[in-house]
Amino acid sequence: MANSYDVIVIGSGPGGYVTAIRSAQLGFKTAIVEREHLGGICLNWGCIPTKALLRTAEIKHFSEHAKDYGLKLNGSIEANIKDVVQRSRTVSARLNGGVGYLMKKNKIDIIWGEAKLTKAAAGAGLGEIVVGKITKKIMQPQNPIPKGTLGEGTYQAKHIIVATGARPRTLPGIEPDGKLVWTYFEAMVPETMPKSIVVMGSGAIGIEFASFYRDMGAEVTVVEMMPQIMPVEDAEISAFARKQLEKKGIRILTEAKVSKIEKTSNSVTAHIDINGKTETVTAERLISAVGVQGNIENIGLEALGVKTERGCVVIDEWGRTNVPGIYAIGDVAGAPMLAHKAEEEGVICVEHIAGLETAEPLDKRKIPGCTYCTPQVASVGLTEAKAKAAGYDIRVGHFSFSANGKAIAMGEDQGIVKTIFDRKTGQLLGAHMVGAEVTELIEGFVVAMNLETTEEELMHTVFPHPTLSEMMKESVLDAYGQVLNA
Amino acid sequence: MANSYDVIVIGSGPGGYVTAIRSAQLGFKTAIVEREHLGGICLNWGCIPTKALLRTAEIKHFSEHAKDYGLKLNGSIEANIKDVVQRSRTVSARLNGGVGYLMKKNKIDIIWGEAKLTKAAAGAGLGEIVVGKITKKIMQPQNPIPKGTLGEGTYQAKHIIVATGARPRTLPGIEPDGKLVWTYFEAMVPETMPKSIVVMGSGAIGIEFASFYRDMGAEVTVVEMMPQIMPVEDAEISAFARKQLEKKGIRILTEAKVSKIEKTSNSVTAHIDINGKTETVTAERLISAVGVQGNIENIGLEALGVKTERGCVVIDEWGRTNVPGIYAIGDVAGAPMLAHKAEEEGVICVEHIAGLETAEPLDKRKIPGCTYCTPQVASVGLTEAKAKAAGYDIRVGHFSFSANGKAIAMGEDQGIVKTIFDRKTGQLLGAHMVGAEVTELIEGFVVAMNLETTEEELMHTVFPHPTLSEMMKESVLDAYGQVLNA
Repeated sequence: MANSYDVIVIGSGPGGYVTAIRSAQLGFKTAIVEREHLGGICLNWGCIPTKALLRTAEIKHFSEHAKDYGLKLNGSIEANIKDVVQRSRTVSARLNGGVGYLMKKNKIDIIWGEAKLTKAAAGAGLGEIVVGKITKKIMQPQNPIPKGTLGEGTYQAKHIIVATGARPRTLPGIEPDGKLVWTYFEAMVPETMPKSIVVMGSGAIGIEFASFYRDMGAEVTVVEMMPQIMPVEDAEISAFARKQLEKKGIRILTEAKVSKIEKTSNSVTAHIDINGKTETVTAERLISAVGVQGNIENIGLEALGVKTERGCVVIDEWGRTNVPGIYAIGDVAGAPMLAHKAEEEGVICVEHIAGLETAEPLDKRKIPGCTYCTPQVASVGLTEAKAKAAGYDIRVGHFSFSANGKAIAMGEDQGIVKTIFDRKTGQLLGAHMVGAEVTELIEGFVVAMNLETTEEELMHTVFPHPTLSEMMKESVLDAYGQVLNA
Repeated sequence: MANSYDVIVIGSGPGGYVTAIRSAQLGFKTAIVEREHLGGICLNWGCIPTKALLRTAEIKHFSEHAKDYGLKLNGSIEANIKDVVQRSRTVSARLNGGVGYLMKKNKIDIIWGEAKLTKAAAGAGLGEIVVGKITKKIMQPQNPIPKGTLGEGTYQAKHIIVATGARPRTLPGIEPDGKLVWTYFEAMVPETMPKSIVVMGSGAIGIEFASFYRDMGAEVTVVEMMPQIMPVEDAEISAFARKQLEKKGIRILTEAKVSKIEKTSNSVTAHIDINGKTETVTAERLISAVGVQGNIENIGLEALGVKTERGCVVIDEWGRTNVPGIYAIGDVAGAPMLAHKAEEEGVICVEHIAGLETAEPLDKRKIPGCTYCTPQVASVGLTEAKAKAAGYDIRVGHFSFSANGKAIAMGEDQGIVKTIFDRKTGQLLGAHMVGAEVTELIEGFVVAMNLETTEEELMHTVFPHPTLSEMMKESVLDAYGQVLNA
């Protein structure tokens, strides 16, 4: 049957399209359904375009601080927000086109529209989805859509993988309006540069925008309900990052809550409950970054009895839902809502379907997390608090960027590398970093944790000199009283 | 005895001072001898100050290309070479001071002067060195020397570790004159910015200076005798780097040799033999970067019968020379002449002296190498050619920066990650990279090789998105026909 597949993936974010590619590699006839943009939020409205914006902010910062490097800026660096946004969109468009190319190369059919699951595969039968008109658009949808794309209709598959992702969570009374109250969608494509911004929420998204807008010259206030910013990060790292962000002029309020807002034609006044009092902050825009929630609605899950819990599809270690033939991966299948977790879940899911012996369930403790503010933050494994709470007797190592030659030569001597070991076994339980380039460094610790390394093996590893990565080893040495350069 | 130690280390480069620190940690009464600068060449005239210069060049490049990031440079970026050099010297001075602090903190005596080995430890006896006046100065010596420093005299130790490092090799007829013909010493502290430079030799030192001076605006010609630049690197990576360096305007001549030079008051004309012909290139300065040679002379090695070979002290896997009680580590003990290799050798040497069970001989195949030109080059393990020559049946994976989201967002989409596996066992034999930040990425592969990883374990490792490091996994996947984003 023309409309019949081995695998249909619903959603073409990184989790979805990587799943489809791996599925095709495994010999499955594969299709992918997308409603708006190949590459999903991540490529079009998330990870990628924000990295482009942050890169511009970084270059602007470098140029403005040319003097620190022995240079002289005769004149000024000007940021025309239209050009900055345009560059970011061009980066997204290139990657969006890349996903189209990958689908074609891997002979994956693209079905354009909104998918609804209508039947689960029973016994040897096929599951079914109906793809219909797009009822609700997010931002500017991709135009044109890729050539040779299939459209509305009914499609069958042995295996249907839900990869519909997530969307911004909103708070009652502080709903985004697309004009004064933004989500990441609007924050990514400002038409003019706001002079002041309130950022509600200090997770990765909130802090990245706070950092970007501050570097671009805006007055920024961050409001966080928890006692620390970036609440999932190690407390010490978070505190260090906070100081650095404050040093560049971001005002940060923790254990604080926006209780209500008032709008004028071009400003928002946030009423902020803090320390038993209420203070008001008026800014041109408010960014609501209070988390994301899975896209589980209106895709037919309820009718088929697919189990969901707290807004996410419930899956087992192979991505299987409670209904045979229906799977879920990525944000819609729960935390941590990270593209690389989604990709890995997808690969595991189809490899398990294919019966690959090498398929292995995902160990969620070994998934790194990165925040691309300045300074960057990156981590993997348990925080010190969580390691203690889990009952581990731990050894903790630290190393400061201020004692690292490369960091000093780069003019980036503010940061920490922190490692946490199980005192009994020497197992690396967690690694936490703040400072320049740590989002690129963390992979070494991820590799180490995946290979179940102990301190001894890391101590015997030769890290190249002069690099920031030397601090990783020093931090390990420090945990065992053998630090060299501190 | 006041002048008697467990361990004396001769030379305070990274290998030397790290050895002394580890020695002190192990409970040994330790002294270190230095003749000119704490931190040796690396901190004062090598790795560190060049990284500072290259950082300035990078920032200059970013500022000049502000337009590529959606910014506008109104005016110009000016590099006053005095300020640029001053910044680099300040970075070195800070680290030099840091070594002084570390010696004090670890209660390591500093002996200032030129050391000569005069006696080897026989049986339970002590070895002896005589520290005398400094007879030959390199550049501006450290001034003031650290407080509380010991001076000329005779000192005894059970274990004497030679860590005297290396110096530039020179070619007859093209001897450095400090004015027109430079080594890295003069190239690091130019008083004026030369308009044109010939760089003789394309190893790490030569290429880094070529890259720096080109970025600072000079006309640069590189002359290399071998068929490829950076001769120790994988041929494919070298060829890619060459194209990029040529794209920024560096002229590169391979299989070429400077046969003689002629000087005027402010220029050097190099006669270059290439393709059976001779061409001449005239430049304001010539940098001789044709390698380094160990400092084995005039330190008493001959009289004590310490064996040397091809200009280096011969050592066993624990850093022991053929004479009991005399050890050598770092550049003076042979290739690869890299600071991180020296440090590791030093740690291993004193840990073995201490009888530490965890001490492990250094596996030289797992020592990474980095070149900090733009684009950067980094590698560990066997090149493709060497893997084949060693008889391995190999699988090779590639991934291009042009298909990586972070690289595109950074505006750094030119580069390659290449991995080489043993087809039979899946063992990672080598990893080779060229492109932005690869000197910081390589550690992940070093960790992996140290833990004797196979492709399967790397495939199960979750690399964070969006990072350059994702390319490392993709390159592994590519070696096994499972690449996702290409």
